[in-house]
Amino acid sequence: MKNSETICAVSTPQGVGGIAVVRISGNNAKQLCFNVLRAGVGEGRAVDFKPNSSQFCRFYDGENLIDEVVATFFAAPHSYTGEDVVEISCHGSIYVQQRIMETLIRNGARSAEAGEFTMRAFVNGKMDLAQAEAVADLIDSQSEASHKLAMNQMRGGFSKKLSELRRQLVDLSALLELELDFSDEDVEFADRNNLFSIIQSIDSEVTTLIRSFRSGNAIKNGVPVAIVGRPNVGKSTLLNALLNDDRAIVSDIPGTTRDTVEDTIVFDGVTYRFIDTAGIRESNDDIENIGIERSYKAAEKAMIVLYVADTTQSTPESLENDIADLSNKVDFSDKHLFVLLNKTDKTPAFDFSIPEADSLPISAKNEKDILLVVNKITNLLKSELQQNDTMLTNLRHYEAMCNIQSSVKAVENGLHTGLTADLLMIDIRQALYYIGLITGQVSTDEILGTIFGRFCIGK
Amino acid sequence: MKNSETICAVSTPQGVGGIAVVRISGNNAKQLCFNVLRAGVGEGRAVDFKPNSSQFCRFYDGENLIDEVVATFFAAPHSYTGEDVVEISCHGSIYVQQRIMETLIRNGARSAEAGEFTMRAFVNGKMDLAQAEAVADLIDSQSEASHKLAMNQMRGGFSKKLSELRRQLVDLSALLELELDFSDEDVEFADRNNLFSIIQSIDSEVTTLIRSFRSGNAIKNGVPVAIVGRPNVGKSTLLNALLNDDRAIVSDIPGTTRDTVEDTIVFDGVTYRFIDTAGIRESNDDIENIGIERSYKAAEKAMIVLYVADTTQSTPESLENDIADLSNKVDFSDKHLFVLLNKTDKTPAFDFSIPEADSLPISAKNEKDILLVVNKITNLLKSELQQNDTMLTNLRHYEAMCNIQSSVKAVENGLHTGLTADLLMIDIRQALYYIGLITGQVSTDEILGTIFGRFCIGK
Repeated sequence: MKNSETICAVSTPQGVGGIAVVRISGNNAKQLCFNVLRAGVGEGRAVDFKPNSSQFCRFYDGENLIDEVVATFFAAPHSYTGEDVVEISCHGSIYVQQRIMETLIRNGARSAEAGEFTMRAFVNGKMDLAQAEAVADLIDSQSEASHKLAMNQMRGGFSKKLSELRRQLVDLSALLELELDFSDEDVEFADRNNLFSIIQSIDSEVTTLIRSFRSGNAIKNGVPVAIVGRPNVGKSTLLNALLNDDRAIVSDIPGTTRDTVEDTIVFDGVTYRFIDTAGIRESNDDIENIGIERSYKAAEKAMIVLYVADTTQSTPESLENDIADLSNKVDFSDKHLFVLLNKTDKTPAFDFSIPEADSLPISAKNEKDILLVVNKITNLLKSELQQNDTMLTNLRHYEAMCNIQSSVKAVENGLHTGLTADLLMIDIRQALYYIGLITGQVSTDEILGTIFGRFCIGK
Repeated sequence: MKNSETICAVSTPQGVGGIAVVRISGNNAKQLCFNVLRAGVGEGRAVDFKPNSSQFCRFYDGENLIDEVVATFFAAPHSYTGEDVVEISCHGSIYVQQRIMETLIRNGARSAEAGEFTMRAFVNGKMDLAQAEAVADLIDSQSEASHKLAMNQMRGGFSKKLSELRRQLVDLSALLELELDFSDEDVEFADRNNLFSIIQSIDSEVTTLIRSFRSGNAIKNGVPVAIVGRPNVGKSTLLNALLNDDRAIVSDIPGTTRDTVEDTIVFDGVTYRFIDTAGIRESNDDIENIGIERSYKAAEKAMIVLYVADTTQSTPESLENDIADLSNKVDFSDKHLFVLLNKTDKTPAFDFSIPEADSLPISAKNEKDILLVVNKITNLLKSELQQNDTMLTNLRHYEAMCNIQSSVKAVENGLHTGLTADLLMIDIRQALYYIGLITGQVSTDEILGTIFGRFCIGK
């Protein structure tokens, strides 16, 4: 079996540093290290592997001294992988790192694949699949919010919710199976009202989780904020003001921006992905029209849309029309829309209010009231983060959760239409199957390959 | 005092990885970690710092959980720095690394300067200055040979030679001081022949070390090999054949190469720096002439010169003249010169032999006999490496060693000319002073700053 092999990898980031750590995991980790490590001075003596203890020793390739190292031993099952693990802390020279790896491989270890240490931790029951996935998210996290979500998931916050859902589904099926056993006698044992309340509670949990995906995914990958509006209203100037950088080219010529211009910035612990777009107008220029199509698409994909208006060139009525036109192209129902009344440096903004948006007067050029915009945006996300300590952040989990929802809805409908218990059981089992897909109780090599393939080597 | 502060740094290479290690050193390392680490589950308990032992724990910034980590404690003086050291092995996320560093600093640690951990190891007597310098060399080493030299120096091979030199100088001065004490009585106690044999043995050791610098430094930084010759003789083709790469632009037009083109490759554990140069000829082209001047300079700086000749365009006589012309510009006495009779694909090479060079027929175009050239070069270096296990690799050591040589020569001359013991003592003390400069028994903040400034942060 693949998992009986002893694996090794440099677990620290690639490159030169003060120290690097080579990790070895597997049944043979200890024996293998006896061949390459010598403790003490002079000829030295065999290393003495006490669990959780570190010792200074020398790493040899045969007769050749490769490095002076510190080796730490973790005994199975009390290690990251659940197997015997030796961590060798060596000098951070690339040459030394390579020689240590070569020597370990020549002595019988195999170079670990991406995520293989964490995969073994999963296989050995140290964590479920959702927790293992959170390890990669934690390593990739770049903001406070994404770090917090990953940490919560790694520590089992999401897994706890899933096991609660599973328990409720199992309770439900127990009640139904009781009915099933006596079905010959044509008696309904379970109180259908009780069944209803259980399934509705499950449905509501699942729906909340599914709803959290949009924010959860946005927090993990950066909240997309599209900046849209007519040409020359100051969209690129606003982008530069938000980023505090000359990211987008700004000129007085309408239609300066053609490609969408993106950059990310962290406000208050959350990463935002600001997308500046081509100005929207009727045009005969083919290239400009392609750009305008992309503006619609960017708005469609965004979680927050900043509609910028030049109040020196528009009236409340024309602005209202423009937004109405836009909402024919872009569905705002699942987005937060802000109307920014720009160029207060030239003329005071007019009053403007529509039910579907917040309005704010700003001067992008003078960077006036930009902080108000930032505050409005961050408050939105902050309340979202406070309400939910567990959010779906992973497309795989989202898809499984949608399948759970379908099965749960089917059970609900079945109860309404008086389906028999054995038919209801099919959908409950289906829902349990999808929960198992998330936690890894049900898994295939293909699923595991995809999940651990996105890890870095050495974790 | 600066050294009483507790310092911290990420010691692993910069970037994202499976794990990263944050190192904390100083009197306060343990207490500081009590504030940020909790062991066990739930609310947790204080970490339990047993020397050389690792424990799983959680790193907190106040109430915020930053990461699940493994902390290892090394008690003074049995640590790298000789102080209390805690190593925190965390997830290799950049965000986590930053938050851990921020939290440690907020709790009273200071961000370590480059090389500060190793500087403390030196200050606390864990290693001398030459050994400390070898740590940086070891981390930078990229070939077997440079690694071996650094490892030997780090383990004290060079320091042992220095302490032997010091012992001999001290013996000498003891004999002379004896004489000095009784100088009133105008008697020479020490046998001057004995003194001579001691100082000559010292001189010969010092001279060997100084001679080793050229090779030692070349092995550390790459052995410079200049490829020179007339235009269009196949120098760039030879470079490409040696590197097994299309590094230099090759054409039939004489004078294609203008700038010197460099690249390194490791043969047999030694890094070589091959330098292709502009062809040497009389020219009125100003740019070409600048290039030709650079060819001379490259040859002058090289340790090995490959002189390439096109045997289809030259005779033994013309070639001999060309080399004689070149030796008016370049001093070959301290270099290894090879004459490569190129283009054996077109015509067999003529016989050619001069006392100052090895000759080899090759075809750069067909990559024929290139391996013979490589073997000739590597054999040169191999014999050099085998003769000397301790080589000077460091300019600072070289300069100090030259000063030691001057002082030793002065003592030698003084003995010849019958200088009195008190005058001889001045030069001996001077030699001891320079030995102390290398080992760090004599050092200034400025010297230490320069030495440790070239370390990476975290070591």
